[in-house]
Amino acid sequence: MYDGIVQELIDEFGRLPGIGPKSAQRIAFHILQTPSFDVKRLAELLTEVRERVRFCEICGNVAEQERCAICRDPRRDPAVICVVEDAKDVAAIERTREFRGLYHVLGGAISPIAGVGPDDLRIAQLMTRLADGTVQEVILATNPNLEGEATASYLSRLLTSMQITVSRLASGLPVGGDLEYADEVTLGRAFEGRRVL
Amino acid sequence: MYDGIVQELIDEFGRLPGIGPKSAQRIAFHILQTPSFDVKRLAELLTEVRERVRFCEICGNVAEQERCAICRDPRRDPAVICVVEDAKDVAAIERTREFRGLYHVLGGAISPIAGVGPDDLRIAQLMTRLADGTVQEVILATNPNLEGEATASYLSRLLTSMQITVSRLASGLPVGGDLEYADEVTLGRAFEGRRVL
Repeated sequence: MYDGIVQELIDEFGRLPGIGPKSAQRIAFHILQTPSFDVKRLAELLTEVRERVRFCEICGNVAEQERCAICRDPRRDPAVICVVEDAKDVAAIERTREFRGLYHVLGGAISPIAGVGPDDLRIAQLMTRLADGTVQEVILATNPNLEGEATASYLSRLLTSMQITVSRLASGLPVGGDLEYADEVTLGRAFEGRRVL
Repeated sequence: MYDGIVQELIDEFGRLPGIGPKSAQRIAFHILQTPSFDVKRLAELLTEVRERVRFCEICGNVAEQERCAICRDPRRDPAVICVVEDAKDVAAIERTREFRGLYHVLGGAISPIAGVGPDDLRIAQLMTRLADGTVQEVILATNPNLEGEATASYLSRLLTSMQITVSRLASGLPVGGDLEYADEVTLGRAFEGRRVL
């Protein structure tokens, strides 16, 4: 539809997740027409990011050094490990400021449909971390969906023989949500997990 | 939330239109974690696009030469000019394959609130194009909103003394839409513009 490079830029943005053809066009024109937009900076960041970013050798979180900022932080409690599917989940939990332990990023969840088995996840690395007896509790914070639940129950069975407390994040009604609009599974979980006041 | 450059990349994507913090994070991680994503190509395109893309000296559409592909095309009818607000509108009209004339991109619409007056638009250039008498019809295809209507009526008054047919795109019910859900202004316009069958 457009002359050469403009269409190429639109196509390239359209390849990014969550960006449809209309958004890609809007972004390309924003870049073309906004003098203040620092094109050079974005181009440099894109080139640098793959070179500089690696994954923490301990927990698998994104890092710019061999170990991520959380694993390097001496104030974090090494007795608690929170197991998540993805590095994005680490950021989500960090935003709550509720958790002061360490993380372990699995790099996905068990999914027979997608062909992801336990060996494709960083489970062996987790077992190595648990071997020296420092860790007292493992919090399973995989997603509350089919794959996440399967992964959590797999890990839970794997850890059952060890002297470690294994816990799972609570399921229930989202805060600020409306009981009327909750699906029956969530509402059922909220009943199961009800707390005595 | 993230170590250095990852956060910088997220922030930079968050500056693009229509991309919130969550989408920016998703895109940054897609770029980090997808080996097949050609980071270098996107970086090169970003650097090149500003250098290579200019705006057509005749119509104001995006172009890689002095004149855009449409103005260069000898098969297009020079007797009809379609006036649009933005280069994105040219692409939208081209997709219909209904129009075989030329375009004129105003570069916006008259908006007293945003401080955009007639002198900020490419109206003088339009008048120059109309001066030699080649153009028989001007189709006003500005957006059917407050600013677009104001711009269309301004241009219509400006062109009234010339021997040129001035037309406006029809307003009415969108095809495939539902009468029940149409707003009253659109429905009113559909009545006004009803056609005898």
